[in-house]
Amino acid sequence: MTRQASHKTMDDFARACGVSRPTLSKYFDDPGSVKASTRERIELALAASDYQPNLFARNLNRKRTRHIGIIVPSMSDPFYAEVVGRIELRLRDDGYWPILIATHSRADLEAEAVRTLLALKVAGAVVAPLGHDSERGTFDRLTEAIPVVCFDSHIGPGMPFVGNNNGQSMSVIVEYLCRSGEPPLFFDIPHVNNNSPERLNSYISAMQVQGHAPEVIACPARYCWDFERAGYEQMQAMLARGSLPGQTVLCANDRMAFGAMAAAFAAGRKVGRRRDSDLRIAGHDDHPLSRYTCPPLTTMAQDVSAMAGRSVEMLLARMDDADEGRESAAESVILDATLVMRDSA
Amino acid sequence: MTRQASHKTMDDFARACGVSRPTLSKYFDDPGSVKASTRERIELALAASDYQPNLFARNLNRKRTRHIGIIVPSMSDPFYAEVVGRIELRLRDDGYWPILIATHSRADLEAEAVRTLLALKVAGAVVAPLGHDSERGTFDRLTEAIPVVCFDSHIGPGMPFVGNNNGQSMSVIVEYLCRSGEPPLFFDIPHVNNNSPERLNSYISAMQVQGHAPEVIACPARYCWDFERAGYEQMQAMLARGSLPGQTVLCANDRMAFGAMAAAFAAGRKVGRRRDSDLRIAGHDDHPLSRYTCPPLTTMAQDVSAMAGRSVEMLLARMDDADEGRESAAESVILDATLVMRDSA
Repeated sequence: MTRQASHKTMDDFARACGVSRPTLSKYFDDPGSVKASTRERIELALAASDYQPNLFARNLNRKRTRHIGIIVPSMSDPFYAEVVGRIELRLRDDGYWPILIATHSRADLEAEAVRTLLALKVAGAVVAPLGHDSERGTFDRLTEAIPVVCFDSHIGPGMPFVGNNNGQSMSVIVEYLCRSGEPPLFFDIPHVNNNSPERLNSYISAMQVQGHAPEVIACPARYCWDFERAGYEQMQAMLARGSLPGQTVLCANDRMAFGAMAAAFAAGRKVGRRRDSDLRIAGHDDHPLSRYTCPPLTTMAQDVSAMAGRSVEMLLARMDDADEGRESAAESVILDATLVMRDSA
Repeated sequence: MTRQASHKTMDDFARACGVSRPTLSKYFDDPGSVKASTRERIELALAASDYQPNLFARNLNRKRTRHIGIIVPSMSDPFYAEVVGRIELRLRDDGYWPILIATHSRADLEAEAVRTLLALKVAGAVVAPLGHDSERGTFDRLTEAIPVVCFDSHIGPGMPFVGNNNGQSMSVIVEYLCRSGEPPLFFDIPHVNNNSPERLNSYISAMQVQGHAPEVIACPARYCWDFERAGYEQMQAMLARGSLPGQTVLCANDRMAFGAMAAAFAAGRKVGRRRDSDLRIAGHDDHPLSRYTCPPLTTMAQDVSAMAGRSVEMLLARMDDADEGRESAAESVILDATLVMRDSA
């Protein structure tokens, strides 16, 4: 067996490739930035050796690293999983390495995630903060040290932010439900971040615009992020008591609607928009499974592609500003959602 | 406004805290390892300063880093999201920092993830490999360099591995379905890793043990990881043609069962285990949403808690072995699954 060539330092390895050290460095930053023939030469040498550039050492010597931190409350929620997946792919395409930390909806892990990103000297961060549960000041050091863009939920006014236009999305679906049948009740979710009160208030305004009295079913807050369960128990209890004050239910998100539909099914109620149905149920988000519920769920599709794309673009622009010593403008991007009409309402 | 104290090096900062540099280092490794009063003193000083230990520099000087890499095909799949969440929490509890990379079911990103972990000098890795789609040799350098434990799916024989006992799980559910009604057909999924052929073969053996002829419905492979869609289209086509050769369907995983149930519902078929139902459908995995389908899905619950816990324990033991210069034994842990009887079958 031939022993692989061993190289301790980047200088060693550059010599072995027959390229200069800056060229090799350029290659490691972005393989597409060097000539094709040079790239091929480096990759042949890499394949024949055990050389691994030490990113830790490299990060120490750089003006900024190629690592970008991503912090989200949960990766078990398919909404975050989908946006994060797109953010990661986009960052990789732009030559950055994403480092993802899920905070498991815990304020202490969120604070630790911020410390970890600072310690890892990431060049920037894309953050979906926990929101109301975040410890005060958790993000202060991060936003002082590096460019940070929030998505889905924001830390406070003035932060760069990419989010859903809850005013637009609730008014579109309320208008649709009123037009196609009885005005909807609203199943509220625990107010974990700014989206929940925004959706609630937008539901109320939209009902008023349509000339109907809003009817809000408050949610007992104890199941915090366990939305399916909250929806299930809410619907189950109201059907059992006969206290559901209507036959059309708009849920604050799809996960809550999944629970509500399952409870209605268990109680023998038929969900759907046809004449022989007992209940109409709609959600918000267009969760990946909402097309596979029985019946498929009518919902508002958040623009996850634009949410990921704009977050990354905004972050990279701010990193450029920081490099050039320019002040970045305060900006936020609010994305319209799209009505997805399926059979549930 | 008071200016925060500024400390450039760990020595500076240790002096400011009034503790020795090794004690400070110990604190950063594991805050619980120093005396409570010392910890308080350091944390007060930290709060009053802008000091951040540079993990990159620290990692350079250490025998090994406190970072552990995690590679999975997808975080949009709730099974991986759940196991990874538990692995992360467990690693954090043990004083390690998880670095998660999802490969988006792409062999090139999987190979890149391995290069990134090597470059980040992680101390060990927990990996759910893509499986059949992995590039040949992707993991060779990683397994040569650091301890690696596979979960869910393995790279090859001899690798430390924690996985589901597909033989046990398929035989339990086949036996249950045969006992409670008509023997099941099997909706196969695309063979993305070793679990798929194992479940298929275990279904066939289990049917033979029960004295029935296996009936396998092969899956057109084009939708690779889009299991809901594969299940939906399979069921829709067979119901439309009237070619479904039975009324009990066992799907190779829950996500496929979600799709099959949605197609049955759309075709007006009633799914469930009661006498007035047309079809029984069962799955495998106990996906978090399987209790919220209409009707709730009968399935085999993988032991995700043990899968996460044993993977981390095995990895940490192997890291200790490596530190002590001991050879680690080849080992694999195969976990039994539990039948979860719900209303779908």
